[in-house]
Amino acid sequence: MSNTLGKLFTFTSFGESHGKGIGGIVDGCPSGIELDEEYIQNELNRRRPGQSAISTPRKEADKVEFLSGIFEGKTTGTPIAFIIWNENQHSTDYDHLKEVYRPSHADYTYQQKYGIRDHRGGGRSSARETASRVVAGALAKLALKKLGVEITAYTSQVGHIAMTKTANLSLIESNVVRCPQPEIAEQMIQYIAELKQEGDSIGGIISCMIKGVPVGWGEPIFDKLQSRLAQSMLSINATHGFDYGRGFEGVSLRGSEMNDSLIKDGDKVSTKTNNSGGIQGGISNGQDIYFRVLFKPVATISKKQNTLDIHSNEVELEAKGRHDPCVLPRAVPIVEAMAAMTLLDLWLSKTPEIL
Amino acid sequence: MSNTLGKLFTFTSFGESHGKGIGGIVDGCPSGIELDEEYIQNELNRRRPGQSAISTPRKEADKVEFLSGIFEGKTTGTPIAFIIWNENQHSTDYDHLKEVYRPSHADYTYQQKYGIRDHRGGGRSSARETASRVVAGALAKLALKKLGVEITAYTSQVGHIAMTKTANLSLIESNVVRCPQPEIAEQMIQYIAELKQEGDSIGGIISCMIKGVPVGWGEPIFDKLQSRLAQSMLSINATHGFDYGRGFEGVSLRGSEMNDSLIKDGDKVSTKTNNSGGIQGGISNGQDIYFRVLFKPVATISKKQNTLDIHSNEVELEAKGRHDPCVLPRAVPIVEAMAAMTLLDLWLSKTPEIL
Amino acid sequence: MSNTLGKLFTFTSFGESHGKGIGGIVDGCPSGIELDEEYIQNELNRRRPGQSAISTPRKEADKVEFLSGIFEGKTTGTPIAFIIWNENQHSTDYDHLKEVYRPSHADYTYQQKYGIRDHRGGGRSSARETASRVVAGALAKLALKKLGVEITAYTSQVGHIAMTKTANLSLIESNVVRCPQPEIAEQMIQYIAELKQEGDSIGGIISCMIKGVPVGWGEPIFDKLQSRLAQSMLSINATHGFDYGRGFEGVSLRGSEMNDSLIKDGDKVSTKTNNSGGIQGGISNGQDIYFRVLFKPVATISKKQNTLDIHSNEVELEAKGRHDPCVLPRAVPIVEAMAAMTLLDLWLSKTPEIL
Amino acid sequence: MSNTLGKLFTFTSFGESHGKGIGGIVDGCPSGIELDEEYIQNELNRRRPGQSAISTPRKEADKVEFLSGIFEGKTTGTPIAFIIWNENQHSTDYDHLKEVYRPSHADYTYQQKYGIRDHRGGGRSSARETASRVVAGALAKLALKKLGVEITAYTSQVGHIAMTKTANLSLIESNVVRCPQPEIAEQMIQYIAELKQEGDSIGGIISCMIKGVPVGWGEPIFDKLQSRLAQSMLSINATHGFDYGRGFEGVSLRGSEMNDSLIKDGDKVSTKTNNSGGIQGGISNGQDIYFRVLFKPVATISKKQNTLDIHSNEVELEAKGRHDPCVLPRAVPIVEAMAAMTLLDLWLSKTPEIL
Repeated sequence: MSNTLGKLFTFTSFGESHGKGIGGIVDGCPSGIELDEEYIQNELNRRRPGQSAISTPRKEADKVEFLSGIFEGKTTGTPIAFIIWNENQHSTDYDHLKEVYRPSHADYTYQQKYGIRDHRGGGRSSARETASRVVAGALAKLALKKLGVEITAYTSQVGHIAMTKTANLSLIESNVVRCPQPEIAEQMIQYIAELKQEGDSIGGIISCMIKGVPVGWGEPIFDKLQSRLAQSMLSINATHGFDYGRGFEGVSLRGSEMNDSLIKDGDKVSTKTNNSGGIQGGISNGQDIYFRVLFKPVATISKKQNTLDIHSNEVELEAKGRHDPCVLPRAVPIVEAMAAMTLLDLWLSKTPEIL
Repeated sequence: MSNTLGKLFTFTSFGESHGKGIGGIVDGCPSGIELDEEYIQNELNRRRPGQSAISTPRKEADKVEFLSGIFEGKTTGTPIAFIIWNENQHSTDYDHLKEVYRPSHADYTYQQKYGIRDHRGGGRSSARETASRVVAGALAKLALKKLGVEITAYTSQVGHIAMTKTANLSLIESNVVRCPQPEIAEQMIQYIAELKQEGDSIGGIISCMIKGVPVGWGEPIFDKLQSRLAQSMLSINATHGFDYGRGFEGVSLRGSEMNDSLIKDGDKVSTKTNNSGGIQGGISNGQDIYFRVLFKPVATISKKQNTLDIHSNEVELEAKGRHDPCVLPRAVPIVEAMAAMTLLDLWLSKTPEIL
Repeated sequence: MSNTLGKLFTFTSFGESHGKGIGGIVDGCPSGIELDEEYIQNELNRRRPGQSAISTPRKEADKVEFLSGIFEGKTTGTPIAFIIWNENQHSTDYDHLKEVYRPSHADYTYQQKYGIRDHRGGGRSSARETASRVVAGALAKLALKKLGVEITAYTSQVGHIAMTKTANLSLIESNVVRCPQPEIAEQMIQYIAELKQEGDSIGGIISCMIKGVPVGWGEPIFDKLQSRLAQSMLSINATHGFDYGRGFEGVSLRGSEMNDSLIKDGDKVSTKTNNSGGIQGGISNGQDIYFRVLFKPVATISKKQNTLDIHSNEVELEAKGRHDPCVLPRAVPIVEAMAAMTLLDLWLSKTPEIL
Repeated sequence: MSNTLGKLFTFTSFGESHGKGIGGIVDGCPSGIELDEEYIQNELNRRRPGQSAISTPRKEADKVEFLSGIFEGKTTGTPIAFIIWNENQHSTDYDHLKEVYRPSHADYTYQQKYGIRDHRGGGRSSARETASRVVAGALAKLALKKLGVEITAYTSQVGHIAMTKTANLSLIESNVVRCPQPEIAEQMIQYIAELKQEGDSIGGIISCMIKGVPVGWGEPIFDKLQSRLAQSMLSINATHGFDYGRGFEGVSLRGSEMNDSLIKDGDKVSTKTNNSGGIQGGISNGQDIYFRVLFKPVATISKKQNTLDIHSNEVELEAKGRHDPCVLPRAVPIVEAMAAMTLLDLWLSKTPEIL
């Protein structure tokens, strides 16, 4: 099933950019969790278009409506369905794209695979689908909070502009680009504004830090914690890479530099360094889990591009829709949501002990 | 299920480094495929320890014995079980490790998760498990060959030493490090030999090229082609990262540089560039699929390391087992095997058309 | 996942009897199928309460609203979400049940399992949930029609009153009890009316006939066609048994009587008898598939019953809600829907041939 | 995956009747369970051919060899692979069947589905495959024992000869037909002996009683406890039906007779009757779980039968292999094994509580 994530905590997603709405069903959510609607809406707001000068001018309320699984304000253990109704769609904006394959979009592959596609705003392949993930992820976060787990993502690089210091996580929301190093954030914002002016776009890297996962989450072999995180992250639109712990930047480290010595930390076992990113043999080791996700530049740009239409005619394309020059600031809550669902599912899948 | 990969073409793996053997069951393999045992054994030989001066001196025949699913030399559509019997195990080599948690190994996490572990040679967490994947992957490759798909991986970087030219795939097996640029291969071999001398280890990058996948493989949303490849690759021991198409190295590209324009190639649709790595919206677009996998340095080194034992005593560790200073040359067929199983599964999972 | 059925054609269900609505997501539906809304609504109408004098007087429009996956009247291969909004709920009818465990209902088990439950109308455990199955099943039926498969269920027994002739499938809808033997139907209707008068309820048997399945559907071992059908049927509320081909009634048959000899039927292979119900070794053999499903009497009755409340006090219960004295007539389309989803999923899961 | 059962406690089966052996992999078994090999072998012996005058004269040692997942006599939480090597195969007994489709066997359906089949002794479709299930089920039983759950099956009917009293479970193993009512057992044995003489075969019913399951096992909707049990039971070769609680025999009961009133049993909640078979809304309610499984007569008989060969020629068939006239006595441990795996999987799949 391509539209379901997870094994015990599952999320099944539906909806198109310009259909009635987008939404999904969360199944396997533990019962008795208070539905903090304000918290959930706030997560959605962090992803919402039109939230700042550097994002798309498209404005959508993105109000979530829960349809089931909640009784007297609490989860009941039954499936939680929800919908975000579409509004403010300018479907006619896309009429000129009905027969065009946009470069580096899914138009051509969907058309070939299914023989039919909803071309309006990218239809099912639109990044609007990720709003549903944020809702489901917020539910997972509420459950994880009870388990003491906290997930925090931030923009660490935009194009060539990268952070130069360790992240102070409290500063993430201090700027619109969600980079916790304000002077670098300033440069990023400036750069994005320039590219917007030029009708171009840029990608970058989102980093994520997870605190509070105890030893033992993740399964050996094919459901390794990093394996499941990689799958989740690469399922986000526009992502092109993933690494955890010391990643590609540390490729020249030797074993003697990379290995994390086990040490005593009071009564507990800890490690001297954490180059492994909190995972050994696919299983959490109690240290912080951290990873990076690479995003390519948004494929929709305002510059002229050569491409083909569905009749294989060569055509020239100039985007008219409203789009982001850089998707990263709005993708931060999506990365957190995917991490949350993945972790909660791995927690639920742990074999209970038999005494 | 942590030990099963895939949905329709599934591989379930079993075995420990120093138990009776390792093996698995391939389910969902199409019927009527000729079992080319020589080909399969050759794939195993490419992964086998002791194959060159820069790999572990451990020698294992690694002969695969098929137990079911084959009749008169062909697959029957029923499950194909196989085993590689363990031999030449020096289990007593590991007696001194029975109570020690080796740095950056899975000893501590397994012990905490299960309350029991087979410490001999890493037990289930040993990279020896990947030999089974090579067998299952070879079966998938035989099926993919019939579909015109060819998967080729190679070592593109060892520590700081990286290839500088486009790969000439015909040169991969021309040297023991499996790098298709001979002068760089020479440097890699030299560097690995030095590290071996020092008792240290090194990681690097394996690149993979897949030719012949038609449009339409991979599913939107959570089973995107890149998503499933990332999961598969990050499930290989010692991997720390994955990217596809233009990856981390191309983070500063703009949309106007990254986008792949669709063009006509005779009767067919092609793209001018292939920065997307052959995938759009999670679905293959008919272009070459390529990706990279990051491996950390082998955790087992001969240098002295500080660590803890299971009683939380601080101990000093000096590895005695036989190990590789650099795992990449032997990991090349594993990357190919995982890619093959993933692709075949996605092909089988495609919804057939109803006319 | 307890709320998802199937592997490739999947249906995920949501909703409670007295919440906002019930619905679900169909994933893996082939693209290009015309959405015949009239047909789908008609299927729902066959299940709808209040359709005849022998069913509950509760009246619900049960209009389905599709939320996604349809473009210009056709399925697109993306998830099809839908909802049936609840209306005409008399939630206060259930206030007296808030703290009571009704006999042979799921009140006690839900409360113990989840620590919380929506008591209104049975909440999630209400048979109202099956309306969603009818919608999803109607989609599956539309796809199966294109493959030449026709599924027809009917009431063959109510209490002790059983059909005495082979079913003439064209007569099923000729009476409100959906029994294709009119004189028996008359007795059934009479008997149900009597029980209604007494405030009691009755169960019975629904039989199902499937025509047009070619050889080869169903998988050996654990996904046998009969195995998957049994699972689907026993997931319907109030079912207590399943048999296929010659079932419990034929327990005294010998092998020489039960075996189906293969014979030639023109160019085709057929069988002389069809005691196997169209299935050999878990795989369809091209003959008609037929099976029976046993339903217990509805647990909600108007007679006084002794039971406990959530504080373990003994209480006396007299149902006030509006309920059916016999659920079978309305369950006929549910049996068909479950069979349709199961068959389509097995068709999709068949390994394609490699030439 | 047709050869894998379960979600968290999974069993993947392999092997053919006349190949190297049969076996499987159990994944998800809790760690720390003592491997009682004598117990497991005893379970196998209960299923073994040649154990009495009324079963096949074929003699197979059926010794199980464990290949992985066990360390120092205990399960480690890693996959447990095992094999039962084939021996005493008279493969040439089956030469005359190479091109024949036996009536009511899987020969024709396998050939059509896969285009190839191992005809020797039925190949993959042989009931010999169920020996692997007994091993895996024995592991599940060992785990369930720790949870206080006891599963006991017995032969309750052979052809027309049915038990007339409530089962005294302690008498099951007192006779070769495994019927706990000795005077009825005598009649069954007599009847089977007669049919053997005639070269014919007979089916019947196996009943199963499960004690000790607490409230809360099983999931609402599609993974109902009865739904999963039905799937498991109908996956056993030769089964044709399943019912639980009051089943087909109680079809004429009214709601007022069928409903189980909740009562106090000291401090605990119990029910006055147990017509529901220990399950409400798909979830165990703490009462005894009981169900019945219908077996058809063995398809292999010594009488002459008309059939077709693979060239569609009409042929006359007389079985030469060694076979059972009645499979039920040997199927008793298979029913228990399937029930055990199903229950343990449902226990593992329960969502843990978050405090």
